[in-house]
Order: sequence, then structure tokens, then C-alpha cells
Amino acid sequence: MKSGTPLSGWKDRVLFTPGPLTTSRPVKQAMLRDLGSRDHEFIAVVHDVRRRLVALGQTTQKQYTAIPMQGSGTFALEAVVSSVVPPDGKLMVVINGAYGRRIARIASVLGIETIAVEFPENCCVDVEEVQRQLDAHGNVALLAVVHCETTTGIINPIEPIGAAANAAGAKYFVDAMSSFGAIPISLPGCHIDYLVSSANKCIEGVPGFAFVLARLASLKDTNGYACSLSLDLYDQWAGLERNGQFRFTPPTHAILAFHQALLELETEGGVAGRAARYQANYETLVAGMRHMGFTEYLAPQDQGYIITSFRYPDDPAFDFERFYDALNARGYVIYPGKVTDADCFRIGNIGRIFESDVQDLLGAVKDVVQECGIKLKPQEAGARQ
Amino acid sequence: MKSGTPLSGWKDRVLFTPGPLTTSRPVKQAMLRDLGSRDHEFIAVVHDVRRRLVALGQTTQKQYTAIPMQGSGTFALEAVVSSVVPPDGKLMVVINGAYGRRIARIASVLGIETIAVEFPENCCVDVEEVQRQLDAHGNVALLAVVHCETTTGIINPIEPIGAAANAAGAKYFVDAMSSFGAIPISLPGCHIDYLVSSANKCIEGVPGFAFVLARLASLKDTNGYACSLSLDLYDQWAGLERNGQFRFTPPTHAILAFHQALLELETEGGVAGRAARYQANYETLVAGMRHMGFTEYLAPQDQGYIITSFRYPDDPAFDFERFYDALNARGYVIYPGKVTDADCFRIGNIGRIFESDVQDLLGAVKDVVQECGIKLKPQEAGARQ
Ligand SMILES: Cc1ncc(COP(=O)(O)O)c(C=O)c1O
Ligand SMILES: Cc1ncc(COP(=O)(O)O)c(C=O)c1O
Repeated sequence: MKSGTPLSGWKDRVLFTPGPLTTSRPVKQAMLRDLGSRDHEFIAVVHDVRRRLVALGQTTQKQYTAIPMQGSGTFALEAVVSSVVPPDGKLMVVINGAYGRRIARIASVLGIETIAVEFPENCCVDVEEVQRQLDAHGNVALLAVVHCETTTGIINPIEPIGAAANAAGAKYFVDAMSSFGAIPISLPGCHIDYLVSSANKCIEGVPGFAFVLARLASLKDTNGYACSLSLDLYDQWAGLERNGQFRFTPPTHAILAFHQALLELETEGGVAGRAARYQANYETLVAGMRHMGFTEYLAPQDQGYIITSFRYPDDPAFDFERFYDALNARGYVIYPGKVTDADCFRIGNIGRIFESDVQDLLGAVKDVVQECGIKLKPQEAGARQ
Repeated sequence: MKSGTPLSGWKDRVLFTPGPLTTSRPVKQAMLRDLGSRDHEFIAVVHDVRRRLVALGQTTQKQYTAIPMQGSGTFALEAVVSSVVPPDGKLMVVINGAYGRRIARIASVLGIETIAVEFPENCCVDVEEVQRQLDAHGNVALLAVVHCETTTGIINPIEPIGAAANAAGAKYFVDAMSSFGAIPISLPGCHIDYLVSSANKCIEGVPGFAFVLARLASLKDTNGYACSLSLDLYDQWAGLERNGQFRFTPPTHAILAFHQALLELETEGGVAGRAARYQANYETLVAGMRHMGFTEYLAPQDQGYIITSFRYPDDPAFDFERFYDALNARGYVIYPGKVTDADCFRIGNIGRIFESDVQDLLGAVKDVVQECGIKLKPQEAGARQ
């Protein structure tokens, strides 16, 4: 079968990517409707979506609000950066991967003064160093960090970093794009003022919008800060509060799908239930890949269960394009690497996939390794190069 | 039946709005798939969508390019305004309704020097006045105008305005949000450098993205002008050209739906076929409404076949909320007015609706008029208050 053609009439490839993900059939079927964006029925759905998102952050609508924003995750990140830093305020970005760098790049395009605190991509953020930088620079308006750095799959310690931001009087912004809904996060417990995630990650909706969870007391001070109409976070919130409607046309179908996804998340046992499934996917994946002789980029103690970066095998017979296409032809989509200093590919554990799907993928990887004649050195369970 | 509850298990209300619209079942069914955003199959769909959009503008990919942009139509308008006016360049916006004002508001938030050329909302743009303003101000970098001002339904003369812009050496930007795909537009013939429309208007896709049609020779000069990362038009184009992929996660499902919508547009006979259906919808609507005694806000010669503003009847028994809810309960969604100086409601003729749907709506309006005891003065065909 040629890659690029549909796999079959009835089944799509399984997506082992960081999103868009494989979603459930009912999530997609929720899109078989056309609702008016200003009609009562749609407004009621938006209201319920916003309420459920706040609850997922382990808090109440008295303290926090959920603001859906049209566009991809990056649009919502830019909405926060461009809407909540006061004029002449400084942003500090903690960086250990491409997504931390992206926040810094957004700020630089917007002309916001930015202090980058960088760590190697294979190292967790060092909280004491962040603390020292906050002390050294003083007067940081907003501290930003990525929770799950999807570049590698590393999980950064957002709670102690939040405590440091709080002690320094900085507002605290977490990019939890690829973790929210699958790793428990208490917004107040982590001192979070703004958190961004998107519809097509661990809540398992389809792409089309992202959302900001904002501490009301912080958001209310930001009226007039924005330097964009479309991405004005305060205005988007004020519009939704006024009449339950979006200021500009919302992706009605993606929101209906997301509502269904939130119901399914609840049925699965909420964040804890979802975490358990992803954790099982991860363990099955890593055990199987190690068994074949693949090695992970990260040390196990830094590795989260969202997505895993594997090093290219040390054999010239391995060619990523060929490997990708051969898996694709078998019905599995994996993801290229994004690490700067090592050749890697990535396999995600998120979306509507189960251990049995991971087993199927492992079988396909084994076939492809043989087909391409790639020589790997099978390892003891748990051992690393 | 309480308004706000689903109408029935199997059929949604018919949307007589300016979008989101009623779409065909196959358009929605195209979303029953999950494709990887960087996978071959999706890239091929995006490529075909972009090719078809350029062809709808009566031109070639040598001269023009199509740039889909995540978010609603306003996001794409802001992408153009923020990405193509050179630093210290001036924008002139021709205004005769809320959407012209929105372009001016975008520019003002972005801090772009803007000259507003305003006309009353019930008057077509006076091209000679625009010409005079261009001469008087000199050195206008970009002239912007709305094609179908959805506020009223008026159609502005984009061809002679384009000629004036061209003669004055200004780039020319048309907001054809609610007209592209249903009113023939030649991009080169109208001297258009940038045109914006969105997925959920006359092409009859679902909301989730909009698109810019850009003259390549103009776009290529704008590298580095953008003051936003998400809305950087040049960068979005360069990314798509590089590898066929979006820089940031695209709304894969909405794009699959749009591709199906483009195929259906072709089957209907392209822009001419669609125009004929909408025109018939419009004529049936207006004849029926006039017959009951409703009057349009615009003079017939200025009124397009996209959407019509009707004046509130001159009878205290008419209450818009009640009127809206009673139609809603019968399965029809109409739209509130947006005109500044007159109380109006709007009825759209676009989306997957046919003359028979319009007849059904007219029947429901008649019922509701009777039920509410609204007194109207039935008119001679074609006569106006
Ligand atoms: C941590 C993180 N931040 C930001 C993004 C960017 O999101 P998007 O591609 O939706 O703009 C991603 C996407 O995977 C991500 O994982
Ligand atoms: C002419 C025109 N411009 C701009 C817009 C705004 O589009 P959106 O609501 O998708 O942001 C609309 C929406 O109806 C429109 O009709």
C-alpha cells in the first residue's frame, strides 16, 4: 500500500503522536450537528465546558475561570503572554525544550522584555536556580514554565516553581498543553495564575481551540493590557461572562466534541482514571521497546507517561523516513523527534489508545526492524546505554 | 417545547444565520476521522484545499496563494492587518457597517495609523469619495473594504474601489468573509492583494479556521513585518510551502469537512451554481416577507442575496426575544440585527438551505406573527415603506 492513501474504508491509522490524537467515535459523532453559535443550546454547552474545566483544576468558579480561545495551543499561549504582562513588565521563561523556547519567541515578537532561564533538554528544571534568577532580576511580572515539555516528555516540577514565583511576587503561567487532564494539577495548590492547554490533547477532543484557566483576581487587573483584538484574553472572558457567547465565531463542532470528551473523561474516573491508562500504555511501550534494544533519551526518573523520545538506533540500516513510512503502511503514526542535540523519534501514549494498541504497535515495530535489517542490542529490563 | 433543548433526536434546527451555517451531512461525516497533522494523507488534503481556493478566485497558483489560518474570520483579518502593513505604513479603511469598523478597531489595537472613510450603513460605498480620500492622504499602504457588509447585507463595489487603490499605489485588502464562494470574484480583475474569508460561510464548511488569498508578489515583500507569532501571515505561508505542514496544530477535522464542502461546491456548479441557489432563497424570502408586511432595511438595488436585514414591525406587540424563541421552538434559527440606527433582525440565505426551507420558515413566521398578534401592513409586491 502506498503511504498517503487511506488505510481502509473503515479504520484510521492509530495516532501515537502528541496531538491531534485518536479520539473516540462518540467524540467525533458529536460533530454531526450544526448549532447556531448564539443559540441557547450552544451557550448551555459552552457553559458546561467552562464549569468542568475549572473543576479539573481542583478549584471553583469563584477563584478561577476557563476561557476557551479559538486557534491552536500556541494562540492561547500568545493570548496569555500578550494580554497579562503589564506595559514595561518583564517576563521570565524557564526553558528546557522547544516549547519553553516558543514562549520566549512569542514574547520577543511582541517586544516584551524577557529573561530566559535555560537548562539542558535532558534535565529537569532546577528550582533553586529559578529561585536565584528571580532574586537576581527582581520585579518579574510573569514567570512561565512548561509542565510536560513535549520535546522530550520530561515533567517539570510546577509546584515548587510556583511557590518560588509566588514568593517573588510574580504571576505564574504554566503551559500544560500536553498534561492537563492526565496529570493531576491543583491550580491554587501550584499557585497558578494562568494555565494553557488545548482541546486535542489529554482531554481527547479534536483540534480547533485551546483554553486558558485564569485566576480571577489576577485576570481582573489586566483590562487594557492586550495588544491584539483576536487574542485579547480579558475581552474574550468579558464577552463570555456578558452573555455566554464568544466575541467571534467559535468552532461549534469542536466544542461539541470537547463536551463529549469531558463526559468520557468523567466516566473513565477523571484525571486519576486517565492517568492510570496512560501510565499503563507508557509502561507497556517502554518495556517492549527496551526489550527490542531501543533506548530512551531521558533518564527514567525524569520521564513522564505522556510521550517518550527514543534515540535512533546506532545502525546505518536505520532510516527514520523509511521506519515512519513502514509503520504508517501498517496503520500506526509515530512522531519525529524535536530534541536539539540527539537524533530521536517520539511515541505518544495519549489519546483513545489502550495497552492492546501499544502491543500492536510494538509488533509492527518488531516487523519493521526485521524488514529493514536494523541491528539492535536487546537490553536487560531497566538497563540503559 | 422549551427553547434551548434539542429539537428532536434526529434533526437540528435550520440556521438562517450568517454562520456557522447548516452544512450537508457528508460535510459533517468527513469529520469522523482522526488524521495526524503531519501525516502524508492530511498534507495531501491541505494541498488540494489550497489549490481549489486559488482557483475559486479565478486565478492561478503562480500569481496567488491560499493561506489557511487557525481561528475565526477575525483572526485572519488581524493576520493580514498585522502582517502586511509596513512599519509606519498607513491603513485606510472604508466603512459602512460593523465589519468595516472591526478592521479599523484591529488596526487601532495594533497601533497602526488608520484613516477611516465612513459612509452611512444603508449606503453603498461611494467610489469617488474613496478616490478623493486616497488622493488627499497620499501614501496609503493598504486600503481595506468589506465586500458583503454582513451588518446589513449590502454589497460594496470592490472592483472600482480596487482600481482606485491600484491607481494610488496602495495594496488592496477585501474582507469577503460572507461572500467568497457565492459571489463571483476575480482576484486579479479586482486588483486584490489580500482577501479573507472563512470556512463556515458560503463554501459551507464548519468553523475552525479562515483563509487568506494573497498575491504572491505582494506577500513576498512582507517578511518580518508581523508583530505576532500566531498570526504571522508570511511565516504561516512559508511553513506551508516548506513541507506542506502547518506551523502549529491545524483543525484537522474542520479541514477535512472543508475539503468535502469544496467538492460539493464544484458539484453544484461552482460559484455560479451556488449563487443561483442563494439568489432563489433570497427572492423567495423577500417576496414572502414583503407579502406579510415586513420591510427591508436596505433599498433593493443595494441588497445582496447573502443576508437581509428586516425592520422591526411598527407594532408594540412585536418583541424580538419572543419572536426569536417562537421560531426557535419551531426549528428555525434567525439572527439579531447589527445596524446602529434602526431596530432590525436578520435572515441569512446561505448554508445548505433550499427554497423549500425558506418556504417552511415563512410559514413559521406567519404562525408566530398570528400567535403574537403582531399587526403588519401587507404591501404590494415590490412596494416599500
Ligand atoms: C507543551 C506544548 N506547548 C505548546 C504546544 C503547541 O500547541 P499547538 O501546536 O496546538 O499550537 C504543544 C503542542 O504539542 C505542546 O506540547
Ligand atoms: C464581513 C465579515 N467580516 C468579519 C466577520 C467576523 O468573522 P468571525 O466571527 O468568524 O471572526 C464576519 C462574521 O460574520 C463577517 O460577516
